[in-house]
Amino acid sequence: MTAILLDGNATSKAIRAEIARDTARLTAATGVVPKLAAILAGDDPASATYVQMKARASAKAGIESVTYPITNDAPESEVRHRLAQLNADPTVHGILIQHPLPKHMDEPSILSDLSAEKDVDGIAPISLGRLVAGLDSFHSCTPEGMIELLKRYNLPIAGKHAVVVGRSVILGKPLALLLLAENATVTICHSRTPNLAEITRQADILCAAVGRPELIKGDMIKPGAVVLDAGYNKVEGRAKDVGDVEFESALQVASAITPVPGGVGPMTIAMLLRNTLTAAARAAGFSLEPETV
Amino acid sequence: MTAILLDGNATSKAIRAEIARDTARLTAATGVVPKLAAILAGDDPASATYVQMKARASAKAGIESVTYPITNDAPESEVRHRLAQLNADPTVHGILIQHPLPKHMDEPSILSDLSAEKDVDGIAPISLGRLVAGLDSFHSCTPEGMIELLKRYNLPIAGKHAVVVGRSVILGKPLALLLLAENATVTICHSRTPNLAEITRQADILCAAVGRPELIKGDMIKPGAVVLDAGYNKVEGRAKDVGDVEFESALQVASAITPVPGGVGPMTIAMLLRNTLTAAARAAGFSLEPETV
Repeated sequence: MTAILLDGNATSKAIRAEIARDTARLTAATGVVPKLAAILAGDDPASATYVQMKARASAKAGIESVTYPITNDAPESEVRHRLAQLNADPTVHGILIQHPLPKHMDEPSILSDLSAEKDVDGIAPISLGRLVAGLDSFHSCTPEGMIELLKRYNLPIAGKHAVVVGRSVILGKPLALLLLAENATVTICHSRTPNLAEITRQADILCAAVGRPELIKGDMIKPGAVVLDAGYNKVEGRAKDVGDVEFESALQVASAITPVPGGVGPMTIAMLLRNTLTAAARAAGFSLEPETV
Repeated sequence: MTAILLDGNATSKAIRAEIARDTARLTAATGVVPKLAAILAGDDPASATYVQMKARASAKAGIESVTYPITNDAPESEVRHRLAQLNADPTVHGILIQHPLPKHMDEPSILSDLSAEKDVDGIAPISLGRLVAGLDSFHSCTPEGMIELLKRYNLPIAGKHAVVVGRSVILGKPLALLLLAENATVTICHSRTPNLAEITRQADILCAAVGRPELIKGDMIKPGAVVLDAGYNKVEGRAKDVGDVEFESALQVASAITPVPGGVGPMTIAMLLRNTLTAAARAAGFSLEPETV
């Protein structure tokens, strides 16, 4: 068996085209242009690249974006003041606080101040809590993108055993909650799981979200499983980023798998833009139904 | 093998004695008497009984309690006004909104208004979100009591495979998150899990929290497993409430098990009182360390 490839690039592109179409509808009907504001604190070069990429993708979808750089040694109050201003600004529909913040800042406390209505990145505690409670909220974009990828490929989730390897706040935990909401039986594994292979081999849907290059080998995968790889690891001597799954061996066992790059990664930004559009439509009292999925 | 019984009555009593001792220390040092306010809306007789029971247990622990009854046909605004007043009242340290609220009220929206500092029942979305994010918060009392029972009996959680049957917002989901925070590998099963027995038989720690009488039989339990039964089901023709576990058959297989009644149940109120004491101590700026566990 050779697995089919779940093409995140093509899927993300299709979704972004839908978003561009719906943004145009919103703007034509209401005059509102969705606006995404990013707070970029510190001097992490990867963060700067991500924010630029997001700005470019926003522009293509008809979404205005603005970035607020804050220097690495700025006081925490500078982030807080900017956030308060963006929370209060009715022309701003989505707010992104680029992770990581400089080390001297209390990131969880800052995130707690983020307005739930504008938390298009889905990482504020209130958004996570509303997800647990089954209430409407924005969801963390990478896990949301993984679910969306399964849906776009008509891969069933309900009744399946999904195994999530990794338990981070932005990835593993919200992913487990989203899979549960889709009626999967869900197992969460992590660094303290003694018999990882025994558990991963039970997965109908195996999600690697742990940040350890090629941790999951082909022999840890149940034949016919769907494998989603959210890993994105830099490995010395390797030209491309490496996933959490050993791709070549997994490809022989799985029925479907995301490549790295070009699998899970491109879905994240599509979900961010969709959430921003949704936030703008809600603020404008405009219904995107029935055209939007 | 016959399982040892995890005695929730005795454990709860011991914890409540610790709370009474610490409450006396707090009050002696600061003059503050912890105060728990309960909003009892509607005419559910079980709710009225619970609230009475909580009031009695509070009094024994030196905690003041006050109940605000609201009639079944009162407008939602009456609950909201009472809640706003209690949120603002510095003499009130813990607020309990007795579930279920009358059907015409928007319970999730009301819970969203509950101050996180006073949510001693741990059920507001913000408390759930802080639990996901790994931030300090009050935890839902029944799952917290189940974890506490394991700890008091020195039953290890880290590295174990815990299986939670049930995914309610106040029980299954927070329990799974608490077990995960204790470094268990965690599987969540529910009504849409096709092969329940296959999963439950893998559990080192099996938690039944589903509200279906005797769903879990002895042959669904791994020999030597620890079994926690949060079920509390009324069954016609049975004198006592019945758990989610078939007790007699489970007793022969498990290494430790909670009886129903007298297992998980009594732990809930102990956790509620402990949370109220903690909230009062924090508000007073008083450290309960080192005596309190």
